[in-house]
Amino acid sequence: MARYDCISLTTDYGLSDGFVAACHGVLARLAPHARVIDVTHLVPPGEVAQGANVLAQTVPHLPAAVHVAVVDPGVGTARRAVLVEAASGLLVGPDNGLLPAAAAALGGIRRVIVLDNAAWHLPSVSATFHGRDVFAPVAAQLAGGAPFAEAGEPIEADKLVELKMPEARAENGQLIAHAVAFDRFGNVMLDVEHDEVGKHGLRLGHPVSVNDEDGHYATTFADVAAGRLLLYEDAYRWLALAVNRGSAADLLGLRLDDEVRIKPSGE
Amino acid sequence: MARYDCISLTTDYGLSDGFVAACHGVLARLAPHARVIDVTHLVPPGEVAQGANVLAQTVPHLPAAVHVAVVDPGVGTARRAVLVEAASGLLVGPDNGLLPAAAAALGGIRRVIVLDNAAWHLPSVSATFHGRDVFAPVAAQLAGGAPFAEAGEPIEADKLVELKMPEARAENGQLIAHAVAFDRFGNVMLDVEHDEVGKHGLRLGHPVSVNDEDGHYATTFADVAAGRLLLYEDAYRWLALAVNRGSAADLLGLRLDDEVRIKPSGE
Amino acid sequence: MARYDCISLTTDYGLSDGFVAACHGVLARLAPHARVIDVTHLVPPGEVAQGANVLAQTVPHLPAAVHVAVVDPGVGTARRAVLVEAASGLLVGPDNGLLPAAAAALGGIRRVIVLDNAAWHLPSVSATFHGRDVFAPVAAQLAGGAPFAEAGEPIEADKLVELKMPEARAENGQLIAHAVAFDRFGNVMLDVEHDEVGKHGLRLGHPVSVNDEDGHYATTFADVAAGRLLLYEDAYRWLALAVNRGSAADLLGLRLDDEVRIKPSGE
Repeated sequence: MARYDCISLTTDYGLSDGFVAACHGVLARLAPHARVIDVTHLVPPGEVAQGANVLAQTVPHLPAAVHVAVVDPGVGTARRAVLVEAASGLLVGPDNGLLPAAAAALGGIRRVIVLDNAAWHLPSVSATFHGRDVFAPVAAQLAGGAPFAEAGEPIEADKLVELKMPEARAENGQLIAHAVAFDRFGNVMLDVEHDEVGKHGLRLGHPVSVNDEDGHYATTFADVAAGRLLLYEDAYRWLALAVNRGSAADLLGLRLDDEVRIKPSGE
Repeated sequence: MARYDCISLTTDYGLSDGFVAACHGVLARLAPHARVIDVTHLVPPGEVAQGANVLAQTVPHLPAAVHVAVVDPGVGTARRAVLVEAASGLLVGPDNGLLPAAAAALGGIRRVIVLDNAAWHLPSVSATFHGRDVFAPVAAQLAGGAPFAEAGEPIEADKLVELKMPEARAENGQLIAHAVAFDRFGNVMLDVEHDEVGKHGLRLGHPVSVNDEDGHYATTFADVAAGRLLLYEDAYRWLALAVNRGSAADLLGLRLDDEVRIKPSGE
Repeated sequence: MARYDCISLTTDYGLSDGFVAACHGVLARLAPHARVIDVTHLVPPGEVAQGANVLAQTVPHLPAAVHVAVVDPGVGTARRAVLVEAASGLLVGPDNGLLPAAAAALGGIRRVIVLDNAAWHLPSVSATFHGRDVFAPVAAQLAGGAPFAEAGEPIEADKLVELKMPEARAENGQLIAHAVAFDRFGNVMLDVEHDEVGKHGLRLGHPVSVNDEDGHYATTFADVAAGRLLLYEDAYRWLALAVNRGSAADLLGLRLDDEVRIKPSGE
């Protein structure tokens, strides 16, 4: 099987404890040839949808890799642990909706395997830390080129748990979108691919109304005055909201999954 | 002497400044062959006991390494800088109680050396940043296989500064434990090894009372309903408290070293 | 041209999103031989002066490297992207004042090139994420030894944007300095090189008054009692303020660029 020189880690473990280092330690011991890239360990605790989103955004920009993702409030229960083979990379994590969006971003699912071969796990598996005891050692095996059919039994791809996500829609001449992610700057990613924006009568350089707040549909932050709202195509090709040198999340008082009503407005 | 291919770093330097990077820079210059694993840099400032705890938890999961730990409110005073040789790894840091628990977790102390050979330090040592100027260059020397007897003069292991820690005890049919660490999820580690839990009349799957709050002695988080308290064996084999999809620290209002009274309760 | 085995990253991207990992991914794909050192990603959003300060402090302690710095509120506008060749390293980032202090810390500017060769950028450059799309790929080219004259057109060094910084001065027997950086411990770096302190009548071991608060001019934190203020030479050879086991920033209520009045005081 193919070897992988890169392993990525995405978790909600935080950076204050030794959890992330314990995973790095397992990888360094079992796959010393691999470079490890931390995507983030600050997914809010247990927030699977937010983990799925950051993972899907980021994996296309990494080298071919085994991507380990652990946001896993059901750890230690009967929830399955899975390997998802995508067209351009492998994903390893709990079967709770965390992985499918990233698999799509990597070209789609080819195969799914339930990680039930205990020989690939650490000798003693704790009830609450499968990142260290199951997912990291499995990733190390895969990075080393072990045949992944040996990881466990295959299941059909449509048996994977999927997240229910809100869906953007047009309604009364408005685009009804949702806040699906926030970044450190207070920028708000919406559930609308930028390519679809033309359908909704929005024109670059023109004013828009967003939840009754005035803004502009622009290219970059500094295209509007400091403190002013813009609608723009973000670096992942999604529609997003920002405030130049400020926070769109704060200005609009948005929280995760909140509805965002967008329409063209008068000049 | 043995070479080490791994160096770990545990500090209270935080991630907002360039302190950690300066240590990485020294290691990259003086020990370019070694992989560096960050345990954490978010030990609360100056909190030696918390640093000692995360270090001791994590080192057994890392490859054989030189472990550098710096939580060092006495930097620049007469406090000693030491190398502790353990059965399965080396520890480098201030002699203020930070290292002994980790040495025990690595199989016990074999030798202690005071780092008084200035030839192993940077040419100019600042009064306040021994992580960069003393501990990182010493770790680089050790990782490169320099004879560690050259690091300085040996002292007896019982001369090392030890932390005074609270001790769990049985009292009136209760287990009196203490909160010794909190993780990002609000889980609370207690000063009781899980193997000792049987002595206290606690039975897996049965109800417990924890500081007069109802809970269950369970295996994993999702064994109890969302919002409910559990007592469990954590991934480091210690007794711990959690709330499924919540924070035990918040529910019980616990702070570091607080007493935790645990007893079996009626069904 | 010289190859570089190290690339450093300094940004305001934060650690909660996938931005930093996307940059690491580009570097791992295009310059797999290079070690990547994260200086910090927690520069406050858009705060160019703070980014410039942490970068200048840290780069002298890193191996010879290509240093990528991105604190870039003007991303996507006509602000230039530049390569600054210093005596002992390369700097890549926006031309907004972020790089000159670091170039000085690396021995001074030798050459400046505007990064206008699109062949060195990713095939599709977003309007808002030049760290991933421009600066990381350029750094990878440079680390690989590509002739940096091919990066774009040279400009004169004095055409680089410079930050306006406050300047310390003597006035009525006082030293009037400014708070130019804060670290995690609440220590406050001032805009005065320690070598100049003698000019202001301050003597090591003697009392000082700092904004009318009593303190001591000392060598290290524990030279004063817990909770007491000290003036000291920090690990970068600047004058700084600290409180032993406390926060000078809090004690003095200081914010960035605030004036700090220092004078010798009676015993």
